[in-house]
Amino acid sequence: MDQIKIFSPASVANVSCGFDVLGFCLDKIGDEMQVKMTDKPGIEIGEIKGQKLPKDPLKNVASIAVQSMLDDYPFKNGFKIDIDKKIKPGSGIGSSAASAAGAVFAVNELLGKPFSKKELIKYAMAGEAFASGVPHADNLAPVLLGGFTLVRDNKNLDVISLPSPPDLMVTIIHPKIELKTIHSRSILKKNIPLNKAVQQWGNLGAFVSALYTNDYDLLSRSIEDKVIEPIRSMLIPKYQEVKKIVLESGALGCGISGSGPSIFALSKGKLNAKKVGDAMEIVYKSIDLEFDIHYSQINKNGIKII
Amino acid sequence: MDQIKIFSPASVANVSCGFDVLGFCLDKIGDEMQVKMTDKPGIEIGEIKGQKLPKDPLKNVASIAVQSMLDDYPFKNGFKIDIDKKIKPGSGIGSSAASAAGAVFAVNELLGKPFSKKELIKYAMAGEAFASGVPHADNLAPVLLGGFTLVRDNKNLDVISLPSPPDLMVTIIHPKIELKTIHSRSILKKNIPLNKAVQQWGNLGAFVSALYTNDYDLLSRSIEDKVIEPIRSMLIPKYQEVKKIVLESGALGCGISGSGPSIFALSKGKLNAKKVGDAMEIVYKSIDLEFDIHYSQINKNGIKII
Repeated sequence: MDQIKIFSPASVANVSCGFDVLGFCLDKIGDEMQVKMTDKPGIEIGEIKGQKLPKDPLKNVASIAVQSMLDDYPFKNGFKIDIDKKIKPGSGIGSSAASAAGAVFAVNELLGKPFSKKELIKYAMAGEAFASGVPHADNLAPVLLGGFTLVRDNKNLDVISLPSPPDLMVTIIHPKIELKTIHSRSILKKNIPLNKAVQQWGNLGAFVSALYTNDYDLLSRSIEDKVIEPIRSMLIPKYQEVKKIVLESGALGCGISGSGPSIFALSKGKLNAKKVGDAMEIVYKSIDLEFDIHYSQINKNGIKII
Repeated sequence: MDQIKIFSPASVANVSCGFDVLGFCLDKIGDEMQVKMTDKPGIEIGEIKGQKLPKDPLKNVASIAVQSMLDDYPFKNGFKIDIDKKIKPGSGIGSSAASAAGAVFAVNELLGKPFSKKELIKYAMAGEAFASGVPHADNLAPVLLGGFTLVRDNKNLDVISLPSPPDLMVTIIHPKIELKTIHSRSILKKNIPLNKAVQQWGNLGAFVSALYTNDYDLLSRSIEDKVIEPIRSMLIPKYQEVKKIVLESGALGCGISGSGPSIFALSKGKLNAKKVGDAMEIVYKSIDLEFDIHYSQINKNGIKII
C-alpha cells in the first residue's frame, strides 16, 4: 500500500465538567485526507481544499505531527499529504486535532502500523501544540480512539477510553466568529476557588459513572461547569440565551465545545437533538449571525479509512 | 419491634483524588448501638461505652441526627440510645458519621422505615454538622449505602453508589493523635491552582472508571492528590515515610483517611494488605508512637442489624 485516504472526524473537548481531560468524537463532520508515499524523503503538503492553510511543512499541523513521528521512526521514503479541510479552524470542534491525528494515523498505516493508536497521540500532539500553543490531548484522544476519552495525565499521556450510552446524540452549533484556543486560554484565571473545584470533580466523577450505567438523568445533572464556562462564555455571542433555550427544549446538557465558539448539546435520541438544534438556530437567526449546525452520534471508532 | 441493635461501620472519606466527594465503607471496625422505643417522648442518650461522649441530647451527634428526623416525622414515642463507641473520635475514619448514621438508621427501622437510606443521609447530616462544623455527606453516604459512594452535590444530596473491585483490601493505621475535622479544614487554602484542579478531576474520573472496570493498575495510578494532601499531611506524624514504605510494599495507593490522622492504603488481596500494614507499623514503632491498625474489605452493605 503506497497511498491511503482517510476520514478524520471533528471532536468535542472539555465537555463542561471535564475541562482539559474529557472529550468525545463526532461522526459525519470531519476532514478527508489523502496521503501518498513518495520516493523523495521528507513531507510535502499537496493540495489543500476548503480552507487556507500553510503549505510550508514547517508550519502545517499535519506535517509537523508526521515529522515528530518520523523523528522516532526514520524512513527512507517521503509522504505527500492532500487535505480536504471541512472543519473550520477556530470553530472549537478540534480542527487542528483532526489534521494532526489524521496525518499520523494515515502515515502509520502506510508504514505498516509500527505504532498503536494510543502511541500516535504523542506524535499528533506535536501538531496540536503548534496550532494551539499548548500540547494537549483532549481532542486528539477521541479522534484517534473514538468514543469518549479521559486524559488522566496529559504529560505522560495516560488516556482512558470510556463507554457511551447508546442513544446519546450531539447537536453542535458554530456561530461564525473565530476564537483561537490560545486566546480563550489566556483569559482563564490561574487559581480557582476550592469549593468550585470540588463541585467540578464531583460532576466529572458522576459523569463518568453515568457513561458506564447509561444513566441519562445523572449525565444531565452532571453536565455543569462553574469554573471555565462563566469566563469563556463571555466570548461567545448570545451564549446564555442559547443555553437557556437548549435546556428548555429538552437537552440533557449544554456547554462550550472545546474553547468555543461552538456550543454543544447532548440529547437522548435523534428527535430531541433535532428539536434542540432548531432552538439553537432561532437565537442566531434573530441576530442575523451566520452559523453552521451539525448533528452527530458519538463516533465510537474515530478516524476511518475510506 | 420496639428495640434494635445495629453495627455502624467506620468509613474513609476523601480518598486522595476525591476530596469532599468520595468515600467508602469499612467492615469489622465500627460502633454498636442499641435503640429502644420508650413511652416518654424525646430522645435520651443511655449508656455510652468506649469513649467519653456528651449525654445531653442537644450535644450528642446521635440524638441531634435523630431529632432532625423526628422534626420531619413527629412520633408519639421517644427513643433511648445506648452507644458502644469503638471508633475513636478525631481518628479520621468517620466516628461522628457512624454515630449519626447509625442512630437515624436504627430509629428509621423502629418507625417502620418511612425513609429510604438515601433520605436518611439528610438527617444524619445534622449530627455530622454539629460534630465537624460543616454538614458533609462523604462519610455518611458510604456508611448508609455501603461500598464506594460519590457525593456529586453535597447541598442537594445527589449521591451515587459506585461498584468496587472484588479483591480490593484496605489497611488503615491510626497514629494516636487527635485531629478535629474543623482544624484540618481551616488550614486549607480557599483557592487552588487550576492546573492542579485539572489533575485532580482527571484522577477522580479515572478512579471512577477503574471501579467500574476492575482495573487495579488504573486505580493505582489515579490515587493521587496534589491539592489537599500536601497541606494536611503536615499535621500527620511521619506521613511521607509511611506513604513511601507503603507504596514500596506494593500497595495500590495511599492517602489521608478523611481529614486524618489515620492513613489508608488500598491493596489487591489480603496478603498485600497485611504486608502494607506491617510496613506501616515499622514507622510508628520506630518513634514509639502508639497506633491502631485495621484491615478491612470494602463493606458493600453499610450499617447492619445485629
